[in-house]
Amino acid sequence: MQSSKPIGMKNVKLASGFWHGRQKINEDMTVYSVYNRFAETGRFNALKCSWTEGAPNKPHIFWDSDVAKWLEGAAYILCEKQDEHLIKLIDETIDTIENNQDETGYFNSYFLVTEQDQRFCHRTEHELYCAGHLMEAAVTYFEITGKDKFLKIMCKYADYIDKVFRIEGSAGFTTPGHPEIELALIRLYHATGNLNYLQLSKFFIDQRGCNEKDNKFYDFANAKYAQDHLPLREQKTAEGHAVRAVYLYNAMVDISQEFQDEALFDACKSIFKNIAERRMYITGGIGSTDVGEAFTIDYDLPNQKAYAETCAALGLALFAHKMSLASPDSVYADIAERALYNGFLSGVSLDGKSFFYENPLEIDPKQHKRNSCTHTAEHLPIMQRKEIFDCSCCPPNVLRYIASLGNMLYSKNDDTVFVHHFMSSTAVLEGLKITQKTNYPSEGDIHLYIKGKCSKIAIRIPGWCSSFTIDKEYELKNGYAYIKASDNTEIQVSFEMPVRMMESSPYVHENAGRIAVTRGPLVYCIEGVDCDENLRDISIELNTAFKVKFDEFFNAPVLFTKGYRRNSSDFKGLYMPAENRYMKQDLKLIPYFGFANRGISEMLVWILKK
Amino acid sequence: MQSSKPIGMKNVKLASGFWHGRQKINEDMTVYSVYNRFAETGRFNALKCSWTEGAPNKPHIFWDSDVAKWLEGAAYILCEKQDEHLIKLIDETIDTIENNQDETGYFNSYFLVTEQDQRFCHRTEHELYCAGHLMEAAVTYFEITGKDKFLKIMCKYADYIDKVFRIEGSAGFTTPGHPEIELALIRLYHATGNLNYLQLSKFFIDQRGCNEKDNKFYDFANAKYAQDHLPLREQKTAEGHAVRAVYLYNAMVDISQEFQDEALFDACKSIFKNIAERRMYITGGIGSTDVGEAFTIDYDLPNQKAYAETCAALGLALFAHKMSLASPDSVYADIAERALYNGFLSGVSLDGKSFFYENPLEIDPKQHKRNSCTHTAEHLPIMQRKEIFDCSCCPPNVLRYIASLGNMLYSKNDDTVFVHHFMSSTAVLEGLKITQKTNYPSEGDIHLYIKGKCSKIAIRIPGWCSSFTIDKEYELKNGYAYIKASDNTEIQVSFEMPVRMMESSPYVHENAGRIAVTRGPLVYCIEGVDCDENLRDISIELNTAFKVKFDEFFNAPVLFTKGYRRNSSDFKGLYMPAENRYMKQDLKLIPYFGFANRGISEMLVWILKK
Repeated sequence: MQSSKPIGMKNVKLASGFWHGRQKINEDMTVYSVYNRFAETGRFNALKCSWTEGAPNKPHIFWDSDVAKWLEGAAYILCEKQDEHLIKLIDETIDTIENNQDETGYFNSYFLVTEQDQRFCHRTEHELYCAGHLMEAAVTYFEITGKDKFLKIMCKYADYIDKVFRIEGSAGFTTPGHPEIELALIRLYHATGNLNYLQLSKFFIDQRGCNEKDNKFYDFANAKYAQDHLPLREQKTAEGHAVRAVYLYNAMVDISQEFQDEALFDACKSIFKNIAERRMYITGGIGSTDVGEAFTIDYDLPNQKAYAETCAALGLALFAHKMSLASPDSVYADIAERALYNGFLSGVSLDGKSFFYENPLEIDPKQHKRNSCTHTAEHLPIMQRKEIFDCSCCPPNVLRYIASLGNMLYSKNDDTVFVHHFMSSTAVLEGLKITQKTNYPSEGDIHLYIKGKCSKIAIRIPGWCSSFTIDKEYELKNGYAYIKASDNTEIQVSFEMPVRMMESSPYVHENAGRIAVTRGPLVYCIEGVDCDENLRDISIELNTAFKVKFDEFFNAPVLFTKGYRRNSSDFKGLYMPAENRYMKQDLKLIPYFGFANRGISEMLVWILKK
Repeated sequence: MQSSKPIGMKNVKLASGFWHGRQKINEDMTVYSVYNRFAETGRFNALKCSWTEGAPNKPHIFWDSDVAKWLEGAAYILCEKQDEHLIKLIDETIDTIENNQDETGYFNSYFLVTEQDQRFCHRTEHELYCAGHLMEAAVTYFEITGKDKFLKIMCKYADYIDKVFRIEGSAGFTTPGHPEIELALIRLYHATGNLNYLQLSKFFIDQRGCNEKDNKFYDFANAKYAQDHLPLREQKTAEGHAVRAVYLYNAMVDISQEFQDEALFDACKSIFKNIAERRMYITGGIGSTDVGEAFTIDYDLPNQKAYAETCAALGLALFAHKMSLASPDSVYADIAERALYNGFLSGVSLDGKSFFYENPLEIDPKQHKRNSCTHTAEHLPIMQRKEIFDCSCCPPNVLRYIASLGNMLYSKNDDTVFVHHFMSSTAVLEGLKITQKTNYPSEGDIHLYIKGKCSKIAIRIPGWCSSFTIDKEYELKNGYAYIKASDNTEIQVSFEMPVRMMESSPYVHENAGRIAVTRGPLVYCIEGVDCDENLRDISIELNTAFKVKFDEFFNAPVLFTKGYRRNSSDFKGLYMPAENRYMKQDLKLIPYFGFANRGISEMLVWILKK
């Protein structure tokens, strides 16, 4: 397979359209809202390393990563918008980090002030995870602005980590408890050219699952929790904590490409297949249980109790994107798109201020009432988004991912430019300019204009699309349409975008007899606020006609149709002889990403099939 | 309403038929199997009150109740069978209790040897519950055999309890943590004529929910857990620990009848209605959550995680039976029958040796595998019955209830004999003999022969029956057919017993789009051992024809029909465009009570409706 390289965030700008709208909200609201919540809770102050016992806001082991992701998101925003206030906030934060980095290069706002003698002793304590996010933020800020102070700070830290872990092996553990630094080091290597960082990343990948010393987990966890059950090249299934898993898989793809390591890439392919064909919600959500925020077993996809963490969907989109660069097969970008438009995007409110950590596919407020009867209630996802969490990884992750979406659109190798995703945008690089115009995902028409030197364009044909036209000759290969191009080539692609009802495998017991309504990349759901109570009793015919109508509130189409339900006022007591007696029910289906933006109500993705 | 009185266990003998078969197993297998398991685990030895610190089998606070229920079950068996060995075991046990009862009358094998200064200090510790079960056993043994030693022992204990709780109020609490003694005291009053026992029972009923002193619960529990949230006459819904609840409701009915207490009986009616119309599985199982083994909220009836304790179904059957004596309306005996044939009877294996504590309506073995991924697994009912539990209340409760079924059949007032249930039997009392012949529940024909003085017979017309014939003139009132009778009256009743598919209320979200198959009083289920995997994907048409065939293994009819399912080998991956494409599936439906008698496999009551 012919791999390709990303063309770099700085070179791609989104233009008016669905995601550009979300980026505006991200720039105007999310970046400041997250900043303020983090400032209020002491996360920025913690970097000053001046906390003393008894003072409020005791630093937490993962707070540095929260700030780092905010920094990275803010840096991406500068690509789009010269926001001087934001620059000031970023630079102040970098200065604080610089002032408190110790002489070895070490920086961690928790261990520098609380357990100073415990540095790098505990594999579970997120030091390398925090370091990795800080490195990513430093690389991004350098790439976007050219300013290298933060990069140098983090190189000094990376050098120290390399010495302690790879050269001396003097830490209390060998590989990180929470993966992240592996992929960050590869970015650091690309930004600096320093091969040590690549080697250190490879070291962590090679050593994982091979060290007795690392067999220490939380009480509730086992080796799978941290992807430590086998050496990585022998892993075939997605296991354990879903965010840790996909961050790790991202780095595995990177290392497999850097070293042309086929065994490692084969493991990536197997794991990806296991996720896509056995362990993923139709929304692209992954990690179905709250216990360990983890993958469980094949086909175990409970809707109401879905964990499906926002960060995990994001990590899956990135993993899938890297797979599509390594091997241009549309199955990868299809999954990236599925996660992006659904299980990731549901993580943030339409106003950009509030967030879901968990993204269930069904909400039954009565189940929360049930919990209130008992003291030791079972875990259920919250029903409305919140501005901040104690463990607030998702909000800044949403921020940085939405700000960085330009990264996902295109990639390039010697003779082909790949178009993986559809967003109005302009991309400029090395004598080439690509202008994409589209109303995707509302409509399936894509117009591409290529100016400059380009011999071939490969456009992904989404897996959800069974009928499309392209106004040029093309060759279809692994889900990409390859088209000869030259200067001033215009290409018009039209994907038919009918409403499609999907069923899930008979092995997914939860969804038996039920269908999910989709259109293009969007998964739809019904909510009590539109469709009354007892949503699980509403049924829909396979041949039903839908009216598709653009909706300002969701900035996307909503769907109207007629369904059926039993008349609950006909019903006496609990059990009656079964009848085929139904009344019609007007249904409004909204994009899944927009659920829970109109107060608490029932919500359902998998609708009964009549 | 015209109330009626039971005609007494000694006067009713079951003859060849469904329940007689179960009684034989009970006599030959269950009584000895339970005895042996209890003996092995030290439950009988504990009565010797000679345990010392460090010795094995430390007595437990509820062991006396286990032994007491065994004693009561064994005593009932003597009614049917003069088993000398059993008599010896019973009398030895009574002697041991007598030898260790202290001079006050107190007997508790836990507090007499472990925490001697803690007697009657802790409301949560089951002392009065154990006392109540011992009283019931003593009354039963006296009624069946005429021997009064045990009765006297328990009267002495009851006198002491009356002094401590009612007269002096000197205990650490006012009302029992776990109800049971309330109903036992009424039986003791009827056996002895001692009004103090009736007054003490009424005292416990009147005081419940009224005492600050009693507001101490387990950490996980609240006032509802122990039915302490309101004075009993103000309670309208079934709350808290289901077994505690129904035992208490039994006594409430008794006291309401003894004292013609309408407010109390109104509470019983409201609570019964709440159970029957909102909080009961179609099997008669109640208490849907393992957390506190409790009732939750209306319509919350999860199938896979159903707790539906065997003892709770039994307690509901007894509560319903008492309601039917207090007020001859068939809704009561209908529910008693539903619980008896389904959610209670599933609690014991067909061979009489093993027991379920919990009685789910769906088993998915894969969910147990899912649990094995995680350390802090969610609670799921076990998939195969066990011979004994640490908390082994259900096995001896099954024993005593099956042995005592004759109690349920008939009741009588000045001019009417009520036939509540249908089992081949002879009943003899005061110059009257009733012979009932039937193959119920396999067939719906009942033949009654009345010899002696009788002016009216009232036969329950089951709620499941929409068409029946009686070969005599009758007047239908509240679900009972009243027929004039005289010496040598023969009555032939025929209930049509078609297969009926039931749906549940649209408010029961769990069962939306699904139906349960029933025939007569029996609820049916499908099992993986007959119908392959992915049972939730199997669907059935409302107009499908069933073949009804008597099955020796279940000693009841099984049903054959054709259903539909998707072909799982057609299915690629997780999600595909939905189609109406099915293959036929031969279905064998077995009586719910017989599930899990052929190894671990999927099981399902609520089948998808096609």
